[in-house]
Amino acid sequence: MVIMTMTSSRAFLPVLERIAEETGRTPGRGRPADYIPALAACDPRSFGMAVAELDGTVYGVGDWRQPFSTQSITKVFTLALDLAREGDELWEHVGREPSGNPFNSLVQLEYEQGIPRNPFINAGALVVTDRLQTRTGDAAGELLAFLRAESGNASLGFDQGVAASESQHGDRNAALAHFMASYGNIDNEIPVLLDQYFRQCSVAASCADLALATTFLARHGIRADGTRLLTRSQAKQVNAVMLTCGTYDAAGEFAYRVGLPGKSGVGGGIIAVVPGRCALSVWSPGLDERGNSVAGVAALDRFTTLTGLSVF
Amino acid sequence: MVIMTMTSSRAFLPVLERIAEETGRTPGRGRPADYIPALAACDPRSFGMAVAELDGTVYGVGDWRQPFSTQSITKVFTLALDLAREGDELWEHVGREPSGNPFNSLVQLEYEQGIPRNPFINAGALVVTDRLQTRTGDAAGELLAFLRAESGNASLGFDQGVAASESQHGDRNAALAHFMASYGNIDNEIPVLLDQYFRQCSVAASCADLALATTFLARHGIRADGTRLLTRSQAKQVNAVMLTCGTYDAAGEFAYRVGLPGKSGVGGGIIAVVPGRCALSVWSPGLDERGNSVAGVAALDRFTTLTGLSVF
Amino acid sequence: MVIMTMTSSRAFLPVLERIAEETGRTPGRGRPADYIPALAACDPRSFGMAVAELDGTVYGVGDWRQPFSTQSITKVFTLALDLAREGDELWEHVGREPSGNPFNSLVQLEYEQGIPRNPFINAGALVVTDRLQTRTGDAAGELLAFLRAESGNASLGFDQGVAASESQHGDRNAALAHFMASYGNIDNEIPVLLDQYFRQCSVAASCADLALATTFLARHGIRADGTRLLTRSQAKQVNAVMLTCGTYDAAGEFAYRVGLPGKSGVGGGIIAVVPGRCALSVWSPGLDERGNSVAGVAALDRFTTLTGLSVF
Amino acid sequence: MVIMTMTSSRAFLPVLERIAEETGRTPGRGRPADYIPALAACDPRSFGMAVAELDGTVYGVGDWRQPFSTQSITKVFTLALDLAREGDELWEHVGREPSGNPFNSLVQLEYEQGIPRNPFINAGALVVTDRLQTRTGDAAGELLAFLRAESGNASLGFDQGVAASESQHGDRNAALAHFMASYGNIDNEIPVLLDQYFRQCSVAASCADLALATTFLARHGIRADGTRLLTRSQAKQVNAVMLTCGTYDAAGEFAYRVGLPGKSGVGGGIIAVVPGRCALSVWSPGLDERGNSVAGVAALDRFTTLTGLSVF
Repeated sequence: MVIMTMTSSRAFLPVLERIAEETGRTPGRGRPADYIPALAACDPRSFGMAVAELDGTVYGVGDWRQPFSTQSITKVFTLALDLAREGDELWEHVGREPSGNPFNSLVQLEYEQGIPRNPFINAGALVVTDRLQTRTGDAAGELLAFLRAESGNASLGFDQGVAASESQHGDRNAALAHFMASYGNIDNEIPVLLDQYFRQCSVAASCADLALATTFLARHGIRADGTRLLTRSQAKQVNAVMLTCGTYDAAGEFAYRVGLPGKSGVGGGIIAVVPGRCALSVWSPGLDERGNSVAGVAALDRFTTLTGLSVF
Repeated sequence: MVIMTMTSSRAFLPVLERIAEETGRTPGRGRPADYIPALAACDPRSFGMAVAELDGTVYGVGDWRQPFSTQSITKVFTLALDLAREGDELWEHVGREPSGNPFNSLVQLEYEQGIPRNPFINAGALVVTDRLQTRTGDAAGELLAFLRAESGNASLGFDQGVAASESQHGDRNAALAHFMASYGNIDNEIPVLLDQYFRQCSVAASCADLALATTFLARHGIRADGTRLLTRSQAKQVNAVMLTCGTYDAAGEFAYRVGLPGKSGVGGGIIAVVPGRCALSVWSPGLDERGNSVAGVAALDRFTTLTGLSVF
Repeated sequence: MVIMTMTSSRAFLPVLERIAEETGRTPGRGRPADYIPALAACDPRSFGMAVAELDGTVYGVGDWRQPFSTQSITKVFTLALDLAREGDELWEHVGREPSGNPFNSLVQLEYEQGIPRNPFINAGALVVTDRLQTRTGDAAGELLAFLRAESGNASLGFDQGVAASESQHGDRNAALAHFMASYGNIDNEIPVLLDQYFRQCSVAASCADLALATTFLARHGIRADGTRLLTRSQAKQVNAVMLTCGTYDAAGEFAYRVGLPGKSGVGGGIIAVVPGRCALSVWSPGLDERGNSVAGVAALDRFTTLTGLSVF
Repeated sequence: MVIMTMTSSRAFLPVLERIAEETGRTPGRGRPADYIPALAACDPRSFGMAVAELDGTVYGVGDWRQPFSTQSITKVFTLALDLAREGDELWEHVGREPSGNPFNSLVQLEYEQGIPRNPFINAGALVVTDRLQTRTGDAAGELLAFLRAESGNASLGFDQGVAASESQHGDRNAALAHFMASYGNIDNEIPVLLDQYFRQCSVAASCADLALATTFLARHGIRADGTRLLTRSQAKQVNAVMLTCGTYDAAGEFAYRVGLPGKSGVGGGIIAVVPGRCALSVWSPGLDERGNSVAGVAALDRFTTLTGLSVF
């Protein structure tokens, strides 16, 4: 094991290179999501990984500069943006507990009277977007502006094709939104909310972009420009929710193997935080049966094993 | 905030004293568990907190040397003892995922064909005890020997009255055990298993004892005598399971507020781990509606806030 | 007990009069539904009951000619109208089993992949309306035409205020419809479907109208004009589904007390069938906690007790 | 269709003969239950059917005199025997509503605080046996005495081998019993209760025996010797519970196809009641996926179709 004790720039590059080399030798990477064409078309052999250090240095290996569909990863940023605005009041509308298995998603929502378990299941993310929309009038626009600022990449944008595809498969999200509306937990008109939601899921960004955009969580709430988005306590909260709820029904498995706050998306991307140290992003489109990138989780597992940088 | 940078002995004593002082001024500490007489008789004003450092130094405040009923806290130790013996095979018989809300306990067990979600819900702890019993012939005895050795307190023992009381209220645990047996996931005779299980829940120990017994998790698997119980990776695993599943249905809340791997018991005790730094134990018998010590969680919350020692 | 052996016209009038007299002396009739204004405004002391014999003779007591909001009672007629058109293919899209308790409505729908348990829970009624809409282009219009023809009351119509109120509280039904659409079990656009559904629920009719409209089920499928709507086997099927699923979560209780195929609505109306003998309709707006008319169920209970005409 | 209008003795013999002949030509009869040896050993080609008329005349076709394992069919008789003793108080300990699908059995029990949905799911039958045991000291003995008296067959007895086999596979029933005991809904010691329960399930009887033993329900509560076991109202109640809950998760389907109160067992037997007319019993060991005899349900379906004697 190489316990990292330095904080000098590019310190993790040798580790990333070793992981990329090992990954290249590993067959069996799962299958890309196939429910929308843009995801199904991804090459399962793609692999990229990037580290962003606290000072904004970013570096990576493989396809670390290639944009991909961020999908649920953006839920972390909308959560932070809304939490920054309304603070603890948010937690009266969405919980912070892991959700158990997928089968329960609807029954839990019913049992808990329209309050989703956490902000990273779809129902909870809809609530967060709804609230951010109410506060800003353009939740997806706020998200995009934030991602552009943190990544320094002004060309980041929505993928209209992906958003349109999501919309075509949007009946389940519409069901969740209407169901929560029946409990009074949605403010906006459902079509407006769904449009905002599908657009934010459609953002295309690279590992480099996402690692940089995630660094505020490693800096305990401080943005790239030195201003504070979240209090230290709020940053800790977001990291805690990522660790306990960030990887669908495999949060326990991810904590056990990787041991870092993380959030995955069905586009095959994952972001992770080493609090006080750096942010990570990895991408490989092949998914396991629970919707997490096979090579992505393996790469993060190797990263914490090789560096000893798990939070545990 | 006082960010702790020293590792010198008794470094946290001022923080503990401040917490004890604040706790003393705080009314409203919940109610002790009342389903068995020994717990109901506890004075809700009791409060103790102890820190054990990596070198075995232990110190505390308040009632930190008074024994109390450890209850579910012992699940951490039986998990470690069994994991040390059988390794990953254990995870074929019990999962590592948070369980969602309490209502689901039985339906999840049915849905997942007799494999409990994690080792800290009752069903999962029964499986762990069953497997340790098969491997040792005396699971509760193994546990007691381990606790005595780590704490250096040879007088630790089972509380026969508590074990007998548990047994009288044991129908739900018997139901769980029989249900899992119907899926072939229990090896021992149910009465033998329940006897072992109720005895291990009945261990009486103090904050000092428990903090010392937990230190092997802060030392990445190394016991007090320098021998290794768990591999570094296994110690990380146990910490991860504690963080995601250690406080009943409030694991997300605990991660959010405290940000440390922890495990609570209905006797009002909690243990927590600062990996690479120290182990903590706190006790106050008044519980919140989810079964966690009100003053205990508050004290740990203050500890990580004052020291900045959350894992996040 | 007065075992009825005659089939002569108006044979049940003395029984109805006795029931009305007893009901008048009974206090405590539950509370009208209050989720829409038109229902909340009903006088809980209203009570009417009518019998329609096989030859079309209809008579009654109390407010038996006063129109009320039929609500879910119309689900019986849309079921019959669709079954007459598509036959057994319908049963590939909706089940025929009781649904257990209300809490399960959504989880069952998820567990059974978008196929509702039966045509009388809301999800199932939406499927039936969807299919009738596909086959006719105007499901609600078909229903109205049928009710007018059977009752001989050309003034029957939709209550636009009730339909509008339902629409305002329609989020849960929209959630169900979108959820089933996500499984491919809805053909029409959701707003079109919901509009049809809310209109059919809004039909205002009297006990006299409904008893006459139900008589085809007592005649084993034969309409008032002598033409056949359903085969004898299909009429038996509809009666069976009414008995096992017709009174929300109280179907077992209704079978136990009344022992007739029946269907209730939250407007306080109930229809019931004595196969081969007559059809009944009763109305009183006060509901029990499961949504069935308190005085209505009691009146039917008395009817079968006094006449011995339960199917059991 | 042959609408039966006579009540003369042996009136249904031609219908039975026709059904037997049709059944003989039908391949595909499902598979016998295989969880205990005695059931697995049954020849799936076995078929018997018997009718018992109100006057005690009994006749049949095929293997109608061959004893088979009655299993859950006996739940009807223990229900009647306990209801006769304690009346409506029973319904405070067990419900009368269909249970939805099998997946819900445990969650419903939890949701409804240890009160089973109805007397025919295993949990409910355990409660009935428990209560009959409390009232008689020998529930299984009471059952046997009743069956011998009604059938006139003094050689009826328990099959010790079947009871022993059931006991070996009894973990799920033990789980249910302990779970209900945790809610205070079981009076007797669990091993005593389970012994009584497995013995009553083990009774071996023929179609002739069972048709005769069921006749009291066709006679509205009157036993073979002319004494009254149940009030007319109670007999109606038992018939209603049979219709809505008597065939596991296929009660709706059975009502829809057969339209008679009925109760099946995994030994392949079914009893059914034509109120005021006769009792039926059919046996063929091959089961469908919901645990009901394939040829048995088909034979009853044909019986009501050919005779028009459905209750609907």
